[in-house]
Amino acid sequence: MAEKSKVLVIGVTRLIGKFVVEASAKSGHPTFALLAPPSTPSDPAEADLVEGFKSLGVRVVQGDIDDPDTMLTAIRKVDVVVSTVETSTEDQYKIVAAITMVGNIKRFLPSVFGSHVDRAHAVEPARTFYAAYYTDILHLLEEQGIPYTYVSCNFLAGWHRSTLAQPGATAPSRDKVVILGDGNAKVVFNREDDIGTYTIKAMDDPRTLNKILYIKPPANTYSMNDLVSLWERKIGKTLERVYIPEEQLLKQIRDAKSPDDLRWAISHSIFVKGDQTNFKIEPSFGVEASELYPDVKYTTVDEYLNQFV
Amino acid sequence: MAEKSKVLVIGVTRLIGKFVVEASAKSGHPTFALLAPPSTPSDPAEADLVEGFKSLGVRVVQGDIDDPDTMLTAIRKVDVVVSTVETSTEDQYKIVAAITMVGNIKRFLPSVFGSHVDRAHAVEPARTFYAAYYTDILHLLEEQGIPYTYVSCNFLAGWHRSTLAQPGATAPSRDKVVILGDGNAKVVFNREDDIGTYTIKAMDDPRTLNKILYIKPPANTYSMNDLVSLWERKIGKTLERVYIPEEQLLKQIRDAKSPDDLRWAISHSIFVKGDQTNFKIEPSFGVEASELYPDVKYTTVDEYLNQFV
Repeated sequence: MAEKSKVLVIGVTRLIGKFVVEASAKSGHPTFALLAPPSTPSDPAEADLVEGFKSLGVRVVQGDIDDPDTMLTAIRKVDVVVSTVETSTEDQYKIVAAITMVGNIKRFLPSVFGSHVDRAHAVEPARTFYAAYYTDILHLLEEQGIPYTYVSCNFLAGWHRSTLAQPGATAPSRDKVVILGDGNAKVVFNREDDIGTYTIKAMDDPRTLNKILYIKPPANTYSMNDLVSLWERKIGKTLERVYIPEEQLLKQIRDAKSPDDLRWAISHSIFVKGDQTNFKIEPSFGVEASELYPDVKYTTVDEYLNQFV
Repeated sequence: MAEKSKVLVIGVTRLIGKFVVEASAKSGHPTFALLAPPSTPSDPAEADLVEGFKSLGVRVVQGDIDDPDTMLTAIRKVDVVVSTVETSTEDQYKIVAAITMVGNIKRFLPSVFGSHVDRAHAVEPARTFYAAYYTDILHLLEEQGIPYTYVSCNFLAGWHRSTLAQPGATAPSRDKVVILGDGNAKVVFNREDDIGTYTIKAMDDPRTLNKILYIKPPANTYSMNDLVSLWERKIGKTLERVYIPEEQLLKQIRDAKSPDDLRWAISHSIFVKGDQTNFKIEPSFGVEASELYPDVKYTTVDEYLNQFV
């Protein structure tokens, strides 16, 4: 059997980074986690993270996107780089730059949510954001001939599903939900560890080379109306549904200051226009994760919500 | 007076690199020349080059595009990077990558001949070459927000003008010239030291920021027919003109092997289609060097040819 690819994960303290590290280590890949020198040397959350990594045999590499030498040193250790850095195109460019300079990386996986600007129906400032953060990065990788798999992970369970996509909430509501638009656009919610699993499966797979990997399993694809109904059935209670018409939302976007306008414009694109689901994944540009890896037993929205009942 | 920008020149052993280094040093800029460790330690041509540089106060920096650490070290020393590396998009990407990683460069000047694919009338493989080597690099710089001036230097005197653009010749012919197409397309020939002078003038100039600098002085712009007539008048002799019709040239391109097909396709674009001159320089994308710097007394084609009479 061929030696397993060595993996570097960048962005391990945020959102899905930790889960990608864990999936990589658990599947037997030599795994490196890039970690900036702690701002607070005794940060207990970070100490826990590092302890968890070490218990899985993950090698923690001190480094920083803004410190080129540490980036080169880290990237030279591996075959595959996964970036879960979720914003700042500047940071993504620096990662791509380091990969270009080192020159031996077999696959780069920017792993983020986001939509291809040409396939989305976003209003500004989301449109510019999609173009810069998603489409331009793809273009850059294609132009430079860096082998890539762009992981479009859609919404995250812990961040969106557990709250019925209510900003500021920490658990699914039991009285009232705000729904953008008519609530019929289909949205995708994935659990973080499943995103990690799919990402690591995809990284060596010739079928995902230079493609977008959409993590969009059917059982995780819900309209907001259906998601609320599912929750209502679980708790045996009817919620008040407050609908925000598209016109009102568009006005709210126009009137809002940065970054609220961006946040609302992305919500408009996803919840009103359905930009996570309103296109067909063509073989020319993409593959769907649950079709490609039917053996992965992902946690469905239905199962996930049970813990909150 | 503000401190003069510090300049790094990459590609100093080829074509115009040496002239850019000299122009920079002579205009008082602290100048660094990147030089790969010599393949032959006692290469006399390179030793002469280094001696010449040192006599002008130029600092020679050992480094190599394929050695990332040396690139970062070299780029960190300066404010402006001029690349005169004339082929390999991979090399250009590595330079851009190093600039991205270092992050403090005030201006990057890729300095090459070449044509914007959207404004050229090139056939393959020149079309793909223009796209990769010119248009994609421009796009990359714009995308990443790297301040640039793209120097479109057109043909070089020593390489093209002194030979009446006859491949393989070392001096203007006195009996026969081969002319591609009807010989009426206008072509631009510049002397290498003038290209160096314009490049260095442009590098601090706000008027050239994020623009293409076209070095296209009127007195250096000739059709092949007029260039041959000028030479004929100087030597008091009529040359035999052999015209290669476009159709024949296109067949030759289709039948040729790489890299001859590319060389012929570029010649077709320039000598038959006139792609150096058949467009208007719009202020939105470009500026012309001799208009911008009327004080530069460049050597005209007319003056240049006198040395061969």
